[in-house]
Amino acid sequence: NEPNEPIIKTNIPGPKSKELISEIGNIQQAGTVVFFTDYEKSTGNYIADADGNHLLDIYMQIASLPLGYNHPDIQKVIANPKNHNIFVNRPALGTNPPMYLFEKLSNIINSVAPKGLNMIQTMACGSCANENAYKAIFIRYNTLMRGGKELTQEDLNECVMNKGPGCPDLSILSFKGGFHGRTLGALATTHSKAIHKLDVPTLDWPIAPFPRYKYPLEENTEYNKKQDEECLKEIEQIIDHFNTVVKKPVAGIVVEPIQSEGGDHHGSPYFFQQLQKLGKKHNSMLLIDEVQTGLGATGKLWAHEHFNLPESPDLMTFAKKMQIGGYFYSDKFKTQPYRIFNTWLGDPARILFLEETLNVIKRDNLIQLNKEVGDYLLANLRNLCKTYPGLIANARGLGTFCAFDGATAKIRDDLILKLKNMGIQCGASGDVAFRIRPSLIFTKNHTDIFVDRLDKALKSF
Amino acid sequence: NEPNEPIIKTNIPGPKSKELISEIGNIQQAGTVVFFTDYEKSTGNYIADADGNHLLDIYMQIASLPLGYNHPDIQKVIANPKNHNIFVNRPALGTNPPMYLFEKLSNIINSVAPKGLNMIQTMACGSCANENAYKAIFIRYNTLMRGGKELTQEDLNECVMNKGPGCPDLSILSFKGGFHGRTLGALATTHSKAIHKLDVPTLDWPIAPFPRYKYPLEENTEYNKKQDEECLKEIEQIIDHFNTVVKKPVAGIVVEPIQSEGGDHHGSPYFFQQLQKLGKKHNSMLLIDEVQTGLGATGKLWAHEHFNLPESPDLMTFAKKMQIGGYFYSDKFKTQPYRIFNTWLGDPARILFLEETLNVIKRDNLIQLNKEVGDYLLANLRNLCKTYPGLIANARGLGTFCAFDGATAKIRDDLILKLKNMGIQCGASGDVAFRIRPSLIFTKNHTDIFVDRLDKALKSF
Ligand code: FES
Repeated sequence: NEPNEPIIKTNIPGPKSKELISEIGNIQQAGTVVFFTDYEKSTGNYIADADGNHLLDIYMQIASLPLGYNHPDIQKVIANPKNHNIFVNRPALGTNPPMYLFEKLSNIINSVAPKGLNMIQTMACGSCANENAYKAIFIRYNTLMRGGKELTQEDLNECVMNKGPGCPDLSILSFKGGFHGRTLGALATTHSKAIHKLDVPTLDWPIAPFPRYKYPLEENTEYNKKQDEECLKEIEQIIDHFNTVVKKPVAGIVVEPIQSEGGDHHGSPYFFQQLQKLGKKHNSMLLIDEVQTGLGATGKLWAHEHFNLPESPDLMTFAKKMQIGGYFYSDKFKTQPYRIFNTWLGDPARILFLEETLNVIKRDNLIQLNKEVGDYLLANLRNLCKTYPGLIANARGLGTFCAFDGATAKIRDDLILKLKNMGIQCGASGDVAFRIRPSLIFTKNHTDIFVDRLDKALKSF
Repeated sequence: NEPNEPIIKTNIPGPKSKELISEIGNIQQAGTVVFFTDYEKSTGNYIADADGNHLLDIYMQIASLPLGYNHPDIQKVIANPKNHNIFVNRPALGTNPPMYLFEKLSNIINSVAPKGLNMIQTMACGSCANENAYKAIFIRYNTLMRGGKELTQEDLNECVMNKGPGCPDLSILSFKGGFHGRTLGALATTHSKAIHKLDVPTLDWPIAPFPRYKYPLEENTEYNKKQDEECLKEIEQIIDHFNTVVKKPVAGIVVEPIQSEGGDHHGSPYFFQQLQKLGKKHNSMLLIDEVQTGLGATGKLWAHEHFNLPESPDLMTFAKKMQIGGYFYSDKFKTQPYRIFNTWLGDPARILFLEETLNVIKRDNLIQLNKEVGDYLLANLRNLCKTYPGLIANARGLGTFCAFDGATAKIRDDLILKLKNMGIQCGASGDVAFRIRPSLIFTKNHTDIFVDRLDKALKSF
């Protein structure tokens, strides 16, 4: 069971973690390690480290562990011997799907697919989820452009050699501050930090501005509305320019509901409604990337539900809390076999955990909990921003998916470090944002502990 | 336990599979499904389907299941409750590695790392293994080019927007017929079939010819040597051209030891030795992609061991039979934190299975077995090529990693279909090759059954 509050016995990382970090540095890059983790001793919202410390975890494996550590219902999945053959025999899901696959995928679709997106493509991570969604967009766009005309054998031979009409100069429009993964296609649409991009060749695809709001929202409605309008205007100009001048037609638009790595930048419902309209007007398909925002983290199942879009986006990608990657789509994206394909196409062992996770979320009303706890958390953060105006500002969030900005990067980084040593595991987003990504079993009680430590840490500056 | 021979009760796919295929077609692309599989009833080298058929599997989940179905030692891994927390708490390996990670990765390195490549980067699949190996190459190449000069803040800001010296015009040289994955970077180096590439934008990177030998090798030494020389000459010309004229310097060369998707094309030890020399001469780093050929499938641990290279390649990628993706590298590729990174960086649950797989391979001498069975299999295939010269030819292989060509694509495809209905699960490679990829527990006895059915199928044409 969870401790009542963080238990801190050593500096973080402690001596045992440090030893392991230095050892693993001989066989791996080790510079990203926060501390070595004792997953057996971790419980619920508390992560245990190699040195016997227990931290309240509001970062949860980069927002990827939905029900916290060692959740009893998830433990039952693996304890059940009936499930074991699913772990032991990893299938190539595309060619030899297990008999239970249809039922399990149907359950997932019935529980969580956005309206109208009644098909699913599973993948193994968020990057290949986005990469393959881009491919689905390109395939559909180029097929429509051909208008039923078949490619010649010569065209097909050329495309194998990266040439000709089978390798079209199409593009995906992405946003400054966006993050969609690290493989080359996904990385071409990622614009979060230099260190994510440096030294890697890329594609010349359009990049548009994303709103940068002032907070609190209710005191800055005019400024923020202008942000929306200016961004939308520039987006349309860029699409036009790429369609007609650069001649790399914008087949798709990829966007996060909240820019979750690049600084927790939000867009308004109005912005997203207009963006969807713009896409339709210019035949650019809309892909909403819910890899980090998805599965209840914002107090709704999917963050884009906050936007009241008249219809679902054309595609929606997921990963992280879903435990597998993939995307939901509609049958207009159906195409020939073997075009969207790879060896494993995900991992049914993870689908099993997802299935049980969905049951628990429903049974325990965790999305409602997230909304309530999120409101409480945000109110507290806003208070702290008022109390420490020289240190932090711009408290914002949906559900528990909250953030605020440090006055400088150094203040933000120092704050994270101080909190770590006070027993709070937390993270950064973009240049100055402090990122809050707890599990779905994070309660008001946990919020109180976090807010108390945050207050103390701010006081100590 | 395995049946003594295939048990076939229905057509393949049978009625239950067909029903499931039609059902799943409503929620997924279903055109690639061979049949629905009963993983509980599958044993060893025999795959069981939804209709009670048991096929001898010489394709093994696209060459990815090392020890066949429900191997007792692999079952013990999951039956052991001590291991369960490793499944339940999926970690972000880069930031919060589990305490056992150093030990497990060290074991893997000590057991299977190529000489001199004593560091490991884990990933979740073969595509991100290659994508990140490319990034490691680009980072090193561009860092060397800068010669210690720091980038300006303006350079860094530009690179976030896909521009400037931080987004260099570097390239990876790949080979006609090669396959390295399906995400956009990997796909730019994949040249196997039009259907893998069609309608997806790509990068203008150099593509070189790969030898196309005549068989049997011992009767065509002169022709094949000329193939090597001509390819090597053209490779050097292309590198020169890209370095000096196109000005997209060739930072790396990616190559499979055997082109495993594009038609089972082999290169000689001489070809690979010279290729490595060429790379060194032009500062192009050599990445050998052992995703499909690796972990004992060719009668050696890694297929490139057949080439007697004076030293290991600069990097070597793996996935499939390894159960996780990744690459081995040397410390010259060490760089700043967060450059090669993603949320999960693989899955320790799969590392657990890999660990036990390596134990079994060693204990049961499975690589030696593969060599012996492979020799026996190849001798039989060569005989059949002599018996049916109008139907099949060019038997070739290393270990059990064997192939032969159909006289036409239709003959090859018909043969696969006939064999399926005679109880042999097999696959295709490239335009006309018949691909053989059994597990590492495939014996002479299994070979006899396969060869018998193959003979009968050929007779029936
Ligand atoms: S690219 Fe997603 S798992 Fe490899």
